[in-house]
Amino acid sequence: MTSMDLSRFSINQMTVKQLSLPELAVACGELSVRQVGLWREPVQEYGLAATAKLIRGAGLTVTTLCRGGFFTAIDPEARAAALADNRRAIEEAAALGTNTLVLVSGGLPPGSKDLRAARERIADALAELAPYAGENGVRLAIEPLHPVYASDRCVVSTLAQALDLAERFPAHQVGVAVDTYHIWWDDRAPAQIARAGAGGRIHTFQLADWTTPLPEGVLNGRGQIGDGAIDMREWRGHVEAAGYTGPIEVELFNEELWARDGREVLAETVERFHSAFL
Amino acid sequence: MTSMDLSRFSINQMTVKQLSLPELAVACGELSVRQVGLWREPVQEYGLAATAKLIRGAGLTVTTLCRGGFFTAIDPEARAAALADNRRAIEEAAALGTNTLVLVSGGLPPGSKDLRAARERIADALAELAPYAGENGVRLAIEPLHPVYASDRCVVSTLAQALDLAERFPAHQVGVAVDTYHIWWDDRAPAQIARAGAGGRIHTFQLADWTTPLPEGVLNGRGQIGDGAIDMREWRGHVEAAGYTGPIEVELFNEELWARDGREVLAETVERFHSAFL
Repeated sequence: MTSMDLSRFSINQMTVKQLSLPELAVACGELSVRQVGLWREPVQEYGLAATAKLIRGAGLTVTTLCRGGFFTAIDPEARAAALADNRRAIEEAAALGTNTLVLVSGGLPPGSKDLRAARERIADALAELAPYAGENGVRLAIEPLHPVYASDRCVVSTLAQALDLAERFPAHQVGVAVDTYHIWWDDRAPAQIARAGAGGRIHTFQLADWTTPLPEGVLNGRGQIGDGAIDMREWRGHVEAAGYTGPIEVELFNEELWARDGREVLAETVERFHSAFL
Repeated sequence: MTSMDLSRFSINQMTVKQLSLPELAVACGELSVRQVGLWREPVQEYGLAATAKLIRGAGLTVTTLCRGGFFTAIDPEARAAALADNRRAIEEAAALGTNTLVLVSGGLPPGSKDLRAARERIADALAELAPYAGENGVRLAIEPLHPVYASDRCVVSTLAQALDLAERFPAHQVGVAVDTYHIWWDDRAPAQIARAGAGGRIHTFQLADWTTPLPEGVLNGRGQIGDGAIDMREWRGHVEAAGYTGPIEVELFNEELWARDGREVLAETVERFHSAFL
């Protein structure tokens, strides 16, 4: 393997979730990977302070914490619990030294068919959380999820919708997550990336490729970079033309990748990232 | 079962594909269903002239023929074959006495990542076919498919894109298919329905409900009306506010429905259609 410029590369922990946090830190060291995106559950399991220490000790930077959100409940108690959980997520992000908390906003509550109302409840939740995020030096990144997830996971389906929500707040409090997997089909996305960049609201840029057939439940079929339909170079061009110079995080949910040796998958991901932008 | 107004109802043959054409005709008679949407493959199998005679004899009207399209090939021979096949589809529609041929435009050709170019090839094909459709009294209805199908089935993912294509041609030649399953997530769709209606381009209105989890391959999980996340009354309101007074066709692809007795599924579909608009 020739020497690669990995200064922009970040590996999202989910891509190699078969690796424990210490294993991930070692594997990153071996491959000269310097940046990681982390998830709350494995961090909580290992311990927040222990994770922060491990990551710092390994010379790694945390690019994002995934994820807050799930703001669409109607029940007042469920809403209060979600807000409390998101305050903890903000604190965890700050403790890990990342300035970006990714939000998956939540699907339709049971029995509801009202997407508009669900989206408005997200705005209500952001109004409560955005100042707290700002006080903690953490930016909330609303992630539009592919419309295939609109009913059960995220009623925010396009960058335009995410920006409509984000722009109600200062950019240092709320922006968006640009993930190729979720937006690649959308002919309006390039203009929305420009809009996001002009407002300083591209808070993370993530890659996954679109491969078919999708597995049952459509959650864990995100393709390795280069295996699918998405022109990664084109999308990187859009975010960079919009002024984005931050990390490029590879976040794959893929049963086949998870079944393999995690270090091998990380090495492959590094190689694919490099090849995509040659 | 109380008496129902089924004057707007049409059953798409795919919903009860376990029924042969003669079985479908009998079942429609028993349930006072007067309109059907047909598919080319079963019609060809039964025979075009025989189908036309059967349908006429049963007092049924054909609301749509599904489907033409698949215009995105790059290879010249494949493109010529697709055009020839679509001319036959237009002739078949005319022979069946329907004025509407639904088009599924096709996915990315193997190895291509260029959605824009694929969409432009659709326009090229329409330019060849639209006049021929008009001469035969057949309107082409471009069906935007849910973005989950963008890579492998249809690069036209939104009503806005479908209308951008359709509006290059006269409305009596090219319009759009409005199917709740494909557009329900799209906050721009109501405005696009208004645009389509104003131009006289809503050439069919179809219903299917969005249910999760989606099955592997995401093709055959379209939910029975009332089982999912879509507010059918709201979408019917949008198309009717846009001036649409035509048939409302229920088109479900669903392995579970196909495994049941077809007459029972048809009766259930009639009942669900009625209940959705009470």
